[in-house]
Amino acid sequence: MRPSVFFYVTYVLCLCLGLLCLLFVSCWRSHWRGGFSWDGTAQQFNWHPVLMVSGLLVLYGNAVVVYRVPFTWKQKKHTWKLVHAGLMLLALLLSVLGLCAVFDFHRGVHIPDLYSLHSWVGICTVVMFTFQLVLGLAGFLLPCSPLWFRSTLKPVHIWMGKAILILSLTSCISGINENLLLTLNGTNGEPYNSLPMEAKFANSLGILIVAFGLFVFGILSINKWQRPETDRENVHLLLTEDST
Amino acid sequence: MRPSVFFYVTYVLCLCLGLLCLLFVSCWRSHWRGGFSWDGTAQQFNWHPVLMVSGLLVLYGNAVVVYRVPFTWKQKKHTWKLVHAGLMLLALLLSVLGLCAVFDFHRGVHIPDLYSLHSWVGICTVVMFTFQLVLGLAGFLLPCSPLWFRSTLKPVHIWMGKAILILSLTSCISGINENLLLTLNGTNGEPYNSLPMEAKFANSLGILIVAFGLFVFGILSINKWQRPETDRENVHLLLTEDST
Repeated sequence: MRPSVFFYVTYVLCLCLGLLCLLFVSCWRSHWRGGFSWDGTAQQFNWHPVLMVSGLLVLYGNAVVVYRVPFTWKQKKHTWKLVHAGLMLLALLLSVLGLCAVFDFHRGVHIPDLYSLHSWVGICTVVMFTFQLVLGLAGFLLPCSPLWFRSTLKPVHIWMGKAILILSLTSCISGINENLLLTLNGTNGEPYNSLPMEAKFANSLGILIVAFGLFVFGILSINKWQRPETDRENVHLLLTEDST
Repeated sequence: MRPSVFFYVTYVLCLCLGLLCLLFVSCWRSHWRGGFSWDGTAQQFNWHPVLMVSGLLVLYGNAVVVYRVPFTWKQKKHTWKLVHAGLMLLALLLSVLGLCAVFDFHRGVHIPDLYSLHSWVGICTVVMFTFQLVLGLAGFLLPCSPLWFRSTLKPVHIWMGKAILILSLTSCISGINENLLLTLNGTNGEPYNSLPMEAKFANSLGILIVAFGLFVFGILSINKWQRPETDRENVHLLLTEDST
């Protein structure tokens, strides 16, 4: 199989997993948890998992691998930098909206914010993501950004990008687990440990999320799927290395 | 700063974080949860977080980065393959013991096994780890293993190694969160959302675990910290690439 065919098979599987995650999280919150509204009730909380999975995981994961798609290699890198940054900005906006949903709900029913480990890891993820986006925009899109800054920032940007994805995955899994423990064990229905249909469905969503994250990491780990640097980009890099 | 000095600073910080994780998890279970025994009670359960954090996270993370330590580069790779495999085997043994601890406890108090998302992700991690170890031993340590098999296995082995670390991190965080929700909310003491001292301490353990995981990923992400391949190893690789 040609390398690009192997890439596209993996990429399409990754896209399908992402769509399945969105479908599962939306179904879970609408079918078992009363659907959506924005009025400080449990229906507002339902936006939290949907927006975090959409923004912080699926959109973020897709924005991370956008440079790896071979058909983009013939086009200007700057165009794809803008696409990458645009997707990241949208991902951050959805995540912040997702945080507003849970904070509003907590205020409405007098639950303290940020007490669980899930919330500690989650808030670290969003803070790190914001920091990464601001630094990325300043370093890679501002024309006045100096070469030495770009070359120093690049490995940090790549490592932080992967770190945010790991934290996002961890936040999603611990969040789904926390929500099932709190909602299923807190009512008169079947408890979590009797594995009612909702629990099986939401656990499967968790496994889909893990699979999506590992696919994104798989795509990132294959070096020959990296965008080849053009001569101009190589000269730029050499100049940068000489100047440091 | 010389690259190897920078490596050793990062490595020592990583070792310290690993030791802190072990210290925190042991203190948590002994100071707030009644210490340890092996009799099917909650004291047997206490071995579960300690053994999983020790085996599946700290020992595993250290085994992953062992090839990166510069002083090992002058020694035979085969010796360090044995160290890597030995540490991994010990990590797996501790993890399996950790699973026995929780299954025995569940049997004693009639709680079903493997119902939560934490347990689904956790069991996937241990199964994947076992598979990786068997395949790694067969592929890289059996003298009769063919060259084409070694070269095909290597990228898969590296990707799966990182995937297991991500899953291990996710399992640890969701497990600590689950345990705090079940134990603090299930008693007459202060609930989890009032953040009693135990909750603050165990949440901090979670943050230390995340920091340890990200340090290990940081060490893995810097290419110049990879063990340089010797001429013999390069010839071996070329032969392998020609034969595929």
